[in-house]
Amino acid sequence: MAKTRHPGSTVSDYLITRLGQAGVKHIFGVPGDYVLDFMDHLVSSPIRLIGTCNELNAGYAADAYARINGIGAVVVTYDVGGFSVLNAVAGAYAERVPLVVISGAPHSARRREPTLMHHLATDYRLQSSVYEKITVAAEVLSDPERVSEQVDRALNACLLHKRPVYLEIPVDLVERPCRKPADAWRMPPPSSDPAILTECVSEAAAMLSAAKRPAILVGVEVHRFGLRNATVALLDKAGYPAATTVHGKTAIPEEHPDFVGVYQGALSREEVRDAIEGADCLLMLGAWLTDITTGGFTAHLDPNRMISANSDRVKIRHHYFEQVYLTDFIPSLTAALKPKPARKTQPPPRLHAQKGPFVPEPGRPLSVARFWPRMSRFIDETMIVLADTGDSMIASAELETDKAESYIAQAYYLSIGYTLPAALGVSLARPEKRAVVFIGDGAFQMTAQELSTILRCRAAPVIFLMNNDGYAVERAIHDGPYNELQPWKYHRLPGVFGEAVSVEARTEGDLERALATVKETRDKLVFVEVHLARTDYSDAVRRLGKLLRKLSVE
Amino acid sequence: MAKTRHPGSTVSDYLITRLGQAGVKHIFGVPGDYVLDFMDHLVSSPIRLIGTCNELNAGYAADAYARINGIGAVVVTYDVGGFSVLNAVAGAYAERVPLVVISGAPHSARRREPTLMHHLATDYRLQSSVYEKITVAAEVLSDPERVSEQVDRALNACLLHKRPVYLEIPVDLVERPCRKPADAWRMPPPSSDPAILTECVSEAAAMLSAAKRPAILVGVEVHRFGLRNATVALLDKAGYPAATTVHGKTAIPEEHPDFVGVYQGALSREEVRDAIEGADCLLMLGAWLTDITTGGFTAHLDPNRMISANSDRVKIRHHYFEQVYLTDFIPSLTAALKPKPARKTQPPPRLHAQKGPFVPEPGRPLSVARFWPRMSRFIDETMIVLADTGDSMIASAELETDKAESYIAQAYYLSIGYTLPAALGVSLARPEKRAVVFIGDGAFQMTAQELSTILRCRAAPVIFLMNNDGYAVERAIHDGPYNELQPWKYHRLPGVFGEAVSVEARTEGDLERALATVKETRDKLVFVEVHLARTDYSDAVRRLGKLLRKLSVE
Repeated sequence: MAKTRHPGSTVSDYLITRLGQAGVKHIFGVPGDYVLDFMDHLVSSPIRLIGTCNELNAGYAADAYARINGIGAVVVTYDVGGFSVLNAVAGAYAERVPLVVISGAPHSARRREPTLMHHLATDYRLQSSVYEKITVAAEVLSDPERVSEQVDRALNACLLHKRPVYLEIPVDLVERPCRKPADAWRMPPPSSDPAILTECVSEAAAMLSAAKRPAILVGVEVHRFGLRNATVALLDKAGYPAATTVHGKTAIPEEHPDFVGVYQGALSREEVRDAIEGADCLLMLGAWLTDITTGGFTAHLDPNRMISANSDRVKIRHHYFEQVYLTDFIPSLTAALKPKPARKTQPPPRLHAQKGPFVPEPGRPLSVARFWPRMSRFIDETMIVLADTGDSMIASAELETDKAESYIAQAYYLSIGYTLPAALGVSLARPEKRAVVFIGDGAFQMTAQELSTILRCRAAPVIFLMNNDGYAVERAIHDGPYNELQPWKYHRLPGVFGEAVSVEARTEGDLERALATVKETRDKLVFVEVHLARTDYSDAVRRLGKLLRKLSVE
Repeated sequence: MAKTRHPGSTVSDYLITRLGQAGVKHIFGVPGDYVLDFMDHLVSSPIRLIGTCNELNAGYAADAYARINGIGAVVVTYDVGGFSVLNAVAGAYAERVPLVVISGAPHSARRREPTLMHHLATDYRLQSSVYEKITVAAEVLSDPERVSEQVDRALNACLLHKRPVYLEIPVDLVERPCRKPADAWRMPPPSSDPAILTECVSEAAAMLSAAKRPAILVGVEVHRFGLRNATVALLDKAGYPAATTVHGKTAIPEEHPDFVGVYQGALSREEVRDAIEGADCLLMLGAWLTDITTGGFTAHLDPNRMISANSDRVKIRHHYFEQVYLTDFIPSLTAALKPKPARKTQPPPRLHAQKGPFVPEPGRPLSVARFWPRMSRFIDETMIVLADTGDSMIASAELETDKAESYIAQAYYLSIGYTLPAALGVSLARPEKRAVVFIGDGAFQMTAQELSTILRCRAAPVIFLMNNDGYAVERAIHDGPYNELQPWKYHRLPGVFGEAVSVEARTEGDLERALATVKETRDKLVFVEVHLARTDYSDAVRRLGKLLRKLSVE
């Protein structure tokens, strides 16, 4: 069949145009015969198709890309691809990441026949019915007349709710003519109800003004909904001490004078815990109280003293205001607050205030206790930090990322191995910055092959492979032989995949040389295998392990 | 909380006892905090827990283990684990593999609270509701009184239907007392209805006896339901020429005098096509007519001349006999057939009859055309062949596996990368045999890290990495830049993961040396990187590519 092109007026052109308008400049995926026709159109479009080694990794890369870029997309083939990427999409749903999943599918004519087509796990309803459960819109394209409505609805839902959407394209739909994309397609986000917003802000402002020790806890939604500047404006005006959750780390800049640290219940530093738990009015902005962000539910937070604003509602003490959106609440509250009242208590010492120089001891074996303080002096404004689930995330809560644009951790869904493909996504979303990954050996083994794609794309992240010879965080929770790993020669892996700079660090002297190499080698991936003793993990992970263990058996 | 042990009478002991009784000797998985308690019990049981690098690979390993062993099992943590392994389970469902999926889950008390527990993608119903769609039993354990019934029902369904089942164990259930496993628990498989069976067999036997050119096509269900010997008895008595599908390859021994070859529509050798399509009565035993097994729907098979027996029903011409099971049908039909009638036509020349010696030309670059004939002389009765989706599977349809115990390919679901973890499963299921894997570079990149676990378990498969620099089978269907891959130095990878023998072969001389190494090195993994030209793929894949392309656009 000769291809008939309808420039600007086929289903694929429609979707690709809209993806571009929504902000997608790169799309991650793995080819497969049901999606090759659509990929042909991608290849000849301004959107760059990034082939990864497998679909799960494509999903992780697209998730991180979306966290930085505001939207991300992944393209896979039917069933084998759709089910392989599923865990990444479930994670994006849990963590509120705007991710578009595009799946090819068999020819529509096959759906009407009882033929056994390859990749078909059960029937043609299966994949879309699974995706319906973990997306805010799941559309199977079947009628070219309806494509524009389906695509526009899905992409609007993705951008509005910051959650995944699913689009399934049978192979015969790709070239079908459909209407040209209209100019106006973005639905404005819903506005808060003025009367409800007024009452809510007025009550919140009165409660905060009456407080002797108010404080603010900032969470991940501030980052996701692009409210960093609005939140800083609130801090600047109010002058209350502010912490973030681990999840919300860098949602406000850590160099802000009112920033006191990362709050995580009993795992927090004492000053941070005191500021947050000692507050007589706590304003929570876009924060989630999960088992992890509360340090294994050790947060002592009194709902009677709490104002909790999330994306689409506000809770004050025990009552809710619906139809009040965080996007409106933060500026309205800022306007309602009195400018910087005389601080009612002495602010706690700033997290990073007294940072002196780090003096390496060249012959000293590397240790967790001294590695992270060293890193606090290494991270700068040119970097975006990614911390994998495990001690990398838990210890790096206290990493001083004063000027870093962003800190990415899957701090709620906690799927290990996420950050290596994520570094690919970050590198493409923000090429002018450098992704710096901290990842344990167990996590790295999950997704290791994606180093290959990072090299292929000539991205230049820095990977700190934290080799402590096993699943350390699980040893802390509950040890057993299942926490052992095959000991890889990790530093030799990048050389198998391509041209890379790779070093081993066993001592502080080695680490200094490695960091010098990082600074000198700005245009290439630098891989640093950091050797740590088996039982050397942070105090925080040790405490968290005990707390989680307690939760799981009681 | 002090652990109270109830030997032989806790939920975990119950499940582990039953798994052992069902035939599980190894279980594959990845630890995670919701499943560590159960893993403790596994570790102290006779079942060996095999930790893999990630969950998808654990699923593939367990699937292949089940194909050889009769049942397999995988154990994962909640959501992040359950969703990561999903694609392997969907594949097991599609390919009828008896696979038990065990997932840990948060404490039951958490399910009654609106708390945000890590790994939770949406709610506590999500994971089990997804698994309900791709299993024949999905049970969430919640009441110790019901555990024995739930476990017994699930394992019986797994063994009966040869399809996956799902068991979810909240962490607090693991140590709960429950009844001791009773002796009788296996439900006998349902028997065929005698009257229906009699009528069905009588009609089939009459139709076959009246035929001038009867033939038999054997499919994968003969292997899955353990009917190899019964089918050979039928062949021995009837003397009809017999082929298998690709999926059913080795379901009857290829050295059988009546075996004519692998049938796959227009891709078949002429003699095989003639025997099957020229038959005036075709008896199909456990065969599936998919787009792949029919060579892109190019099979010319007339339903009016067909008897098609599957696991639980028989179709003769256009009518069905329900409640007739393949397990009963084959021996009953054998009994009803007249012993070896004078052959009505000259049998076609046997596939492997005229196999002469292979004469290597040491300086000649390796080619697909000569590689596979060489392999036909290499494969022997000590080996189990695994062929990955792509040209490895398609070209190896004609591989002469006269004496090989089994040939494993995911010939319907076609999830690439399957065979590398599968080699781990096969090596543990049948340590006295040697797994021999043929896998393309694109497939290998999907699951490459599982080489590590193969080395860790000191398994000794032979891996032929068919490096043709890209997704060759997709180039044959539809070429584009997405079919390019990052060129790894594949032969250097095993050395990163552990101690291995790894060689490169560019010429026929290199290959001979590699094969000598394989024969000499019986107790270690041998990795052979086979260099092929980019466009060197089998004629069969070229033809199949065109056929699939036609199917996808018309």
